[in-house]
Amino acid sequence: MTDATGTDQAAQGGTTSGRRARGGAEARRAVRSRPKLEQLPYITRKIPVTEVLDEEGLAIIERNADIILEEIGIEFRDDEECLKLWKDAGADVQGTRIRFPRGLPRSIIQKSAPRQYTQHARNPERNVEIGGNHTVFAPVYGPPFVQNLDDGRRYATIEDFRNFVKLAYMTPAMHHSGGTVCEPVDLPVNKRHLDMVYSHIRYSDKPFMGSVTHPERAADTVEMAKIVFGAEFLEKNTVITSLINANSPMVWDGTMLGAMKVYARANQACIVTPFILSGAMSPVTVAGTLAQVLAEVLAGAATTQLVRPGAPVVFGVFASSISMQSGAPTFGTPEPTLVSLAAGQLARRLGIPFRTGGSLCASKLPDAQAAYESAQTLLPTLLAGTNFVLHGAGWLEGGLASGYEKFVMDADQLGMMQKLSEGIDLSENGQAMDAIREVGPGSHFLGCSHTQANFETAFYRSTIADNNSYEQWEAEGRLDAAQRANKLWKRMLREYEAPPLDPGIDEALQEFIAKKKAAVPDSNV
Amino acid sequence: MTDATGTDQAAQGGTTSGRRARGGAEARRAVRSRPKLEQLPYITRKIPVTEVLDEEGLAIIERNADIILEEIGIEFRDDEECLKLWKDAGADVQGTRIRFPRGLPRSIIQKSAPRQYTQHARNPERNVEIGGNHTVFAPVYGPPFVQNLDDGRRYATIEDFRNFVKLAYMTPAMHHSGGTVCEPVDLPVNKRHLDMVYSHIRYSDKPFMGSVTHPERAADTVEMAKIVFGAEFLEKNTVITSLINANSPMVWDGTMLGAMKVYARANQACIVTPFILSGAMSPVTVAGTLAQVLAEVLAGAATTQLVRPGAPVVFGVFASSISMQSGAPTFGTPEPTLVSLAAGQLARRLGIPFRTGGSLCASKLPDAQAAYESAQTLLPTLLAGTNFVLHGAGWLEGGLASGYEKFVMDADQLGMMQKLSEGIDLSENGQAMDAIREVGPGSHFLGCSHTQANFETAFYRSTIADNNSYEQWEAEGRLDAAQRANKLWKRMLREYEAPPLDPGIDEALQEFIAKKKAAVPDSNV
Repeated sequence: MTDATGTDQAAQGGTTSGRRARGGAEARRAVRSRPKLEQLPYITRKIPVTEVLDEEGLAIIERNADIILEEIGIEFRDDEECLKLWKDAGADVQGTRIRFPRGLPRSIIQKSAPRQYTQHARNPERNVEIGGNHTVFAPVYGPPFVQNLDDGRRYATIEDFRNFVKLAYMTPAMHHSGGTVCEPVDLPVNKRHLDMVYSHIRYSDKPFMGSVTHPERAADTVEMAKIVFGAEFLEKNTVITSLINANSPMVWDGTMLGAMKVYARANQACIVTPFILSGAMSPVTVAGTLAQVLAEVLAGAATTQLVRPGAPVVFGVFASSISMQSGAPTFGTPEPTLVSLAAGQLARRLGIPFRTGGSLCASKLPDAQAAYESAQTLLPTLLAGTNFVLHGAGWLEGGLASGYEKFVMDADQLGMMQKLSEGIDLSENGQAMDAIREVGPGSHFLGCSHTQANFETAFYRSTIADNNSYEQWEAEGRLDAAQRANKLWKRMLREYEAPPLDPGIDEALQEFIAKKKAAVPDSNV
Repeated sequence: MTDATGTDQAAQGGTTSGRRARGGAEARRAVRSRPKLEQLPYITRKIPVTEVLDEEGLAIIERNADIILEEIGIEFRDDEECLKLWKDAGADVQGTRIRFPRGLPRSIIQKSAPRQYTQHARNPERNVEIGGNHTVFAPVYGPPFVQNLDDGRRYATIEDFRNFVKLAYMTPAMHHSGGTVCEPVDLPVNKRHLDMVYSHIRYSDKPFMGSVTHPERAADTVEMAKIVFGAEFLEKNTVITSLINANSPMVWDGTMLGAMKVYARANQACIVTPFILSGAMSPVTVAGTLAQVLAEVLAGAATTQLVRPGAPVVFGVFASSISMQSGAPTFGTPEPTLVSLAAGQLARRLGIPFRTGGSLCASKLPDAQAAYESAQTLLPTLLAGTNFVLHGAGWLEGGLASGYEKFVMDADQLGMMQKLSEGIDLSENGQAMDAIREVGPGSHFLGCSHTQANFETAFYRSTIADNNSYEQWEAEGRLDAAQRANKLWKRMLREYEAPPLDPGIDEALQEFIAKKKAAVPDSNV
C-alpha cells in the first residue's frame, strides 16, 4: 500500500470549510480548485418491489413467528436488564427464556418505532434517509482479511481500513461509509474501535456505523459522535446506525444486547439482524427460515423500543445457505434470494426499515464465481425494497476477506442499481418520438439531434467493463476485469483527497482517543 | 477437441428405442444400463413478474407505436408478396413503405395468433410449452468464433457446433437445443444449415430452431423435420421455432421475410425480433426504444398471421445499448433491463409469447465482467416473464464468440433460475415448525430430523462454485471459476452419449442431405 503516505499527506492538506471553518483565503481557494468529486444522493426507488408471497403466505409466516415467540420463546442471555424490561412489559420470563404474549412485540414496535429515519452525516449533503422507498448502499462489514492481486490474501491492518473508507468515500453510489470495512488486526482489540470510528470521521464525510463488540466501545462511539455533532444534536437526531446480530437460532446474547441498549438509549439506530446460514442456524427451508427470522427480529426490535420508545430500529436479515455436503456457506443461490424478497415484505408489513443482502459471494478471488454470486445477491436486494444495504461492495470469501478489486467492481454494479432504480423516463424527451420521426426506417440514430442532446446522460457508463473490439482489447494487454479493477483502486487512492474537517473537532477527537488509550493497557479480548 | 471421435462412436452405439425401434436385446440392455441423464422440464413460474410500467406508461408506449405504424410506417423490402398481403388487408402501401390503419396489426394478431404453443421434440418428454407462465432456456445463437481456455478465441467449426449441441443436451435446465449454437465456418454457407439441423436432431432429442439465412434453407429445415416427425404431424403441430430479426429501425428485409413465410406457412413458429442496440438502431431512451420495438413487432407478427392465421409467433426483443464513446455494444447495464421488463408487459397485453435477454455480456473472457453482465441480464430475463430465452448459456464478446467455459458457467445459473422460479414452499414440510420446535434456541439444525429428511433437495447445488475453506481451495490448486468450468465441459463431452435415434430416420436424413449437397456447387453466399 505505497499510496497511503501520499494520501494521508493530501488529507492533512485541505481541511478548512464547514460551519466552524478556520483558515485563510488560500485554503478556501484550494478547496474551490479541487475537482468536484461526483457523489450521488441516496436512492429513491421509482421501480416496484418484487414480492414472492401473497397475503395468505405472509399470514402463515406471521402466525408461525407468533407461535415461536409464544410457545418456544427467545433466549436473552447475560442481560438482567432486558429480562426485567420484558417482565415489566408482561412477558413470561423463565430464567433467560422469554415467552411473549401473542402480538406483544409487534404492537410495541408499531407503537413507537419510526417507519423511516434520517441518519445525519457530518456533511449534511451526505445525510441519508433509511426507510420508505429509499435505498442506501454501505460497504462490506467485518472481514479479518484483505485480498488484492498484488498481495493475495493477508490479515487486514488499520491502513487497509483507511483505504476502504477512502474508496467508499470516492464511490458515487456508495451513500454510507459503513462500519468494520475490515478488521484492523494490527491494533489491540480493546482499542481499535477508536481508530476505526476516527477513520470514518476523518477520511470521509458520509454517515457511518458504530462499534458493537462491547457496550463500552459503543459508548465511546457515541462520545466521539457527540464531539463531531454536539451532544444536544445527538439527543434529537440519529448520526450512528449500528449492526446488532442475533445469535441464531432464537438467542440474543449479552454483548449485542449491551451495545444495542447503549445506542437505543442515545436515540441511535440499530439494525437488528438474525445472521442466518439456513441449514445451520435455521431450518433448510425458506418458509421455516422466514418464520424464525421474523420471531428473532420482533423480539430484538421490540427490545429497543422498551429501552427507548422511538429509537430507530431496522429489520435486518443476513440470509445465506450452507452446502449440505461440506457445511460451508454458499451465496448467490436461489433460496437466500427468496428469503430476502419475502423478508422485505414482512418488514414493510411490520412498518420499519429493512436491511438484507449486498454483494455476497463465497469466492476467494474476484473471478466469475464472485461476480455471478454478487450480482445474484445485489439485484434481488434492490428488488426486495431493501432500505439499508450492508456489504454493498468488497465482500469476498463468505465475508472473510475485503477485496480491493472486488470493491471497485461491486461499486460499478451499485452505480448500475442506482440507475435502474430511476425506472423509465416517460417525459417527452424520454418518449423520443421526434428522434424516431427524424431518423425514419433504415437509417441510424447515432448522429440525430435527440442522441446528441442526450449524449452525456443516455446510458450508465461502467467503470470496469471493456466493451472494445477484440483487437483493441488484445492491443491493450488482454486484461480481465480484475486486472482493470486493480488499476482503478490504485488510481482512486492516489487521487484521494480528504473532505474538510474542522481542526478543532479533529483535535478534540484525537484528545479523546489518546485519553482512552492511555487509561487501560492493550488487550486482545 | 480430442473428445469428438470418441463421443461420435458412442453416438453410433446406443440407438435402438422409440416408436420405430430396431435391434436386439443387447442394444436394449445397453440403453437400460446407461446412467439416467438428469433433465428438468420447461419452467412453470410460481414467482410473479416484475413490472416497471403502470397502465398509463403502457398506454403511452402503445399509442406511440400506433403513431409510428400509422404515420411513419415500416419498410418491407424485397418481398412483393408481403406488400400485396398488406395491401389486401387494407394498409397504405407506397413503394416498400407500409403505413397501417390504427389498430390493424394488433387486431390481426389478436384474432388468430396463439397465446401459447407446444414445440414438439423428437423425444416427447422434451416437448416445451412456449407462452403463459412458462420459461424455456435455449443456448447462445450466432457466434462465428468459439472461445475456451485451451485455444483462446478461434473460428468455429462443425465439430464445435456438435459439441455445443451435446453440452446443451447434457444440461438439465437447458430445455431447448437452440439453433446456430455457433457458426460452422468450415462448411460452405449454402450447405452448412443441413449439417447444423442434422446435428440438433442426431446429437440431442430436445426441440430445435431452423435456418433463416435463405428461404430455401428454411424449406430444407422443414423437409428434414418432416422426415423426423412425419409431414402430417407437422401440418398440425409445431416442431421448429425460428429467429426472424428485424433490420431495425423499422425495416423488415427480404431474406428474413422469405424465411418467415416458409415457417409460418408450414405452421411453424417465428420469433419476430427487433435487434436493438439503443443509440444506433433505436433512440437512446428506454421509452423511445419500446415504442419502436412494439411497432416493429406488431408489423412483423401480424404478417405471419396474414400468411397463415394461427401460426405461432413470438414477441421478441434483443435489447442492448451502445457505449456513447466508442459505439461498441454494452450488456448487463440498467437500460436494457428496463426495456426487457417493460417489453414483457407489452407482450402480455398483446397476448403472444415473449422472448428477450439471456446471459449476455461484452467480455472476451469468462471473467468477472462476463459474469456480472450475464447475471444482470439473466435474472431480469426471468423476472420479465420471458417465455423463450435465447442465449441462455455460452454467449461471450457481444455474441461474437461461443464460450465453452462460459457455457457451463451459465448453465449453472440457469439451474438456479429454475429453482428460483419454484417460489416458496408453504407446505407443512416447508414451514418446518417441527424442526424449530425440535432444535430450539441456541442449538443448530445440522443434524435434526427435518434437515436429514430434506438433505437431498434442500438447496440448489452449484456445479461451478467453490465454497470450501481457503486452505482446501489452496490445496486443490487455487482454481478460479473458469478453470473449474474448463474441467467440467471436458468431462461432459467425455461422458456424452447420444440419445437413441431410429436408424431408418437417420438414414433418410443422411440421404436427403447427400442429395441436397450434390445438387449445387459449394458457395459462400
